[in-house]
Amino acid sequence: MTDADADAVRPERKPPSERRRAESAADAVHPYLVRDIPPFEVVDEEGLALIEHNADTILEEVGIDFRDHPGSLELLKAAGAEVDGERVRFPRGMCREIVTTSAPATFTHHARNPQRSVQVGGNATVFVPAYGSPFVHDLDQGRRYATLEDFHNFVKLAYQSRHMHLSGGTVCEPVDIPVAKRHLDMVYAHLRYSDKPFMGSVTSGQRAQDSVDLAGLVMGEDFVTSNTVMTSLINASSPMAWDSTMLDATEVYARNMQAVVISPFILAGAMAPVTVAGVAAQTLAEALAGMTFVQLVRPGAPMVFGSFASSMSMQTGAPTFGTPEPALVLFIVGALARRLGVPFRSGGNLCASKVPDAQAASESMATLMPALMAGVNFMLHSAGWLEGGLAMGYEKFVMDADQCGLMSKLVAGVDLSENGQAMDAVREVGPGQHFLGTAHTYANFETAFARSEVANNDSFEQWDEEGRLDAAQRANGIWKRMLADYAEPGLDESIDEALTDFIARRKADLPDGIA
Amino acid sequence: MTDADADAVRPERKPPSERRRAESAADAVHPYLVRDIPPFEVVDEEGLALIEHNADTILEEVGIDFRDHPGSLELLKAAGAEVDGERVRFPRGMCREIVTTSAPATFTHHARNPQRSVQVGGNATVFVPAYGSPFVHDLDQGRRYATLEDFHNFVKLAYQSRHMHLSGGTVCEPVDIPVAKRHLDMVYAHLRYSDKPFMGSVTSGQRAQDSVDLAGLVMGEDFVTSNTVMTSLINASSPMAWDSTMLDATEVYARNMQAVVISPFILAGAMAPVTVAGVAAQTLAEALAGMTFVQLVRPGAPMVFGSFASSMSMQTGAPTFGTPEPALVLFIVGALARRLGVPFRSGGNLCASKVPDAQAASESMATLMPALMAGVNFMLHSAGWLEGGLAMGYEKFVMDADQCGLMSKLVAGVDLSENGQAMDAVREVGPGQHFLGTAHTYANFETAFARSEVANNDSFEQWDEEGRLDAAQRANGIWKRMLADYAEPGLDESIDEALTDFIARRKADLPDGIA
Repeated sequence: MTDADADAVRPERKPPSERRRAESAADAVHPYLVRDIPPFEVVDEEGLALIEHNADTILEEVGIDFRDHPGSLELLKAAGAEVDGERVRFPRGMCREIVTTSAPATFTHHARNPQRSVQVGGNATVFVPAYGSPFVHDLDQGRRYATLEDFHNFVKLAYQSRHMHLSGGTVCEPVDIPVAKRHLDMVYAHLRYSDKPFMGSVTSGQRAQDSVDLAGLVMGEDFVTSNTVMTSLINASSPMAWDSTMLDATEVYARNMQAVVISPFILAGAMAPVTVAGVAAQTLAEALAGMTFVQLVRPGAPMVFGSFASSMSMQTGAPTFGTPEPALVLFIVGALARRLGVPFRSGGNLCASKVPDAQAASESMATLMPALMAGVNFMLHSAGWLEGGLAMGYEKFVMDADQCGLMSKLVAGVDLSENGQAMDAVREVGPGQHFLGTAHTYANFETAFARSEVANNDSFEQWDEEGRLDAAQRANGIWKRMLADYAEPGLDESIDEALTDFIARRKADLPDGIA
Repeated sequence: MTDADADAVRPERKPPSERRRAESAADAVHPYLVRDIPPFEVVDEEGLALIEHNADTILEEVGIDFRDHPGSLELLKAAGAEVDGERVRFPRGMCREIVTTSAPATFTHHARNPQRSVQVGGNATVFVPAYGSPFVHDLDQGRRYATLEDFHNFVKLAYQSRHMHLSGGTVCEPVDIPVAKRHLDMVYAHLRYSDKPFMGSVTSGQRAQDSVDLAGLVMGEDFVTSNTVMTSLINASSPMAWDSTMLDATEVYARNMQAVVISPFILAGAMAPVTVAGVAAQTLAEALAGMTFVQLVRPGAPMVFGSFASSMSMQTGAPTFGTPEPALVLFIVGALARRLGVPFRSGGNLCASKVPDAQAASESMATLMPALMAGVNFMLHSAGWLEGGLAMGYEKFVMDADQCGLMSKLVAGVDLSENGQAMDAVREVGPGQHFLGTAHTYANFETAFARSEVANNDSFEQWDEEGRLDAAQRANGIWKRMLADYAEPGLDESIDEALTDFIARRKADLPDGIA
């Protein structure tokens, strides 16, 4: 249905400036990364088995709360769990058995433009914009509440960036739109202003259903109920609890064959122990309980084992990012996900900094790189995240997407072909000469090195002459050009009308509160 | 001899401000890092064997030049190499045989304060300041030529930082001192203003000898000729050549049982092929030739297999840093060093940025983290590096040292003890509660999370109230406090007199040119 629009995603563009080319959707080669490096294993087989044993102990002895959600309790009880009020205890091995038996190891998340459909799981990695911030930040206006206009801007930026594989979900909270209605505007924006895969609403079962219905209007109802067109974020109420809102949304999505990311959300020291092995065991226990529920709702429903773990300032209780402990957690959880045979979500360009400065950059890279080396499949918060997720940054988005682009070459691994070995070049050049003019260098010129679009590698003098811009200032120019260059992917007029009609009807039934 | 000074390194200090504590030598616990994570292996056994095979082919077919240095040609010929003019070709396996037979896998680099002596190799990692920049940079005065005062400042900062294990070598070029004399002032500064291990001069055989002699005046001539008190940097003239200056210095150090870091220095695309596997094979070939020479000079002499590889802007030819290709190179070279059984040098907080901005930070972390995961033993350029090594940054030094401190917890690995597993805490807290007040959290409070001294994790409002400082501005305050707080480690007056006498005598014989 959107095949006809394929050309529309490649609008005519001004010739890129030679030195600082704005990113462009037209450059997309693969709609996701294909990893060809082994995952980093920080803990051996025995250590992983110990953590799995501890997770089973948590599930069996302590149990997990399923709150205000009798339906889940019934399902879990029927499957063999022991239910005591809202507390659910699982016989040792039960969750693992259910998950490994019925969960798919990989699935296709379809985009309305089939050329942008992605694989989730296996050796694939997708970068997804940051999610959920009430504020936005840019160098011109500083920090302010996000609006629907900001939301549209970030959908457009993610569409323009060839390094973002998904359009994202709540790329920021459009707080100028009533709470009960904004999910409709958000899903509409993803469907209209982008043709990349996107994430649905999770703030109630009905909003999840609205997301499914809207997608159905674009991609066909039949297609949507038998194919995955959304991968949506389901956070636990850590420690050891799932609440009814998330369970309702999970149920709607699983029934409709839509994917969910089952994510324990842990600030270590507050929602879990302060230790890495403790966080890992609790994360596994919470995720196993949630994933078991998904598979009981609909065996074979696509899902992702999510992990979000941050450290904490022991002085102030504030979350901290880019520290080594969460990196160690995600190495372990990546291995645990592989042992379960399910896709793994973690990482992102996370930081606590309020501005796109050196703190933001080192914290972000200290999350991005270990996540990639841990074998992450679905990287939420890949671009834009500032201030512990409170703000979505325009410059930060550009800087993060740029780093995602660079690091995609890291995970592609080492070329050991004849061309990669380059022995002819070495023989040709020999001692004391240079390689700049060799046939091998020419042949590999274009693709030899990952190239940043934000970094400045000029001489000091040239950089000085051109105004001494720092990385954030350069990124400021880039996002403005990206928005100026934006052209809609194109959506059939009758489909657009169906969407806006649906939204108008639904909005008429919904309250206008902003709080 | 300096045992008596041990207390002097712990001067009385003002109580640290609660939230942003200046780093202090007094906090040092270990004089080096002990790694407890496995190295990341990006290429399998077969791939490594292929690269070793290619290195042997380069050594056998192409050969390596040993320039203007008849002594090395004689030594190599006598050991079985084929010498043709200055070109030396090595029978397949010869270099590996010599290196693996006689080179030590680890050695102790002694400091004048024995409490600061470090292990080089094995599971130890040391952080060493950046090396060799003609310029310095700070936020107040911008970029300018380095002076001896700057040199002293960086020696003092490295002494004050508990994350720097060595005092460094040419922490910047004191260009206000005549070229032929400045090595004396540099070595003196390391011996006088610090008691951490340091690096000697390599710009001529005589200057290397001066370095050895000066160290002997402090630590005793006998001690110095039978123990390693310097680890000095020997760069190849890549591609595939060693020059007489470096060979002379190498010879002096090896004869005196002083360690050298035998480092191919490669801007890929210029001094080597543009491909990762090509750079790795050439690096190994050059290093093997250099290390073979060391072992022929003195079997058993301590040495380090060094690798410095940067990528290149294919538009301008400028070196680029923090890109994925050099990270892939260092994963491979780390593995090659382990297979040779020698310590491995690589990494650093490398960047191309002119200022301590987000570019500097992400590029630096994208080198620091893979180097640590590659199992680096000797990390030169750990702190201060800006602008591709042209400038040593004051703020950058503080920011880099801070990241080194954080990442030292990454390489310490995962605690799987009972306390690390934290199952009692999980049982105590249970679903829906928080862990802040548990006995386990209290017990682990102090050491649970690595803590940055530069990052700001406060709320936006608090950060706003306190002046909205970015990371570089906060680092500016920190280095000034560190210098203000600096107190000399103390050096016996008669030793100091011997040093200054020696230097005065040597300087009288040396020319005054600055060029």
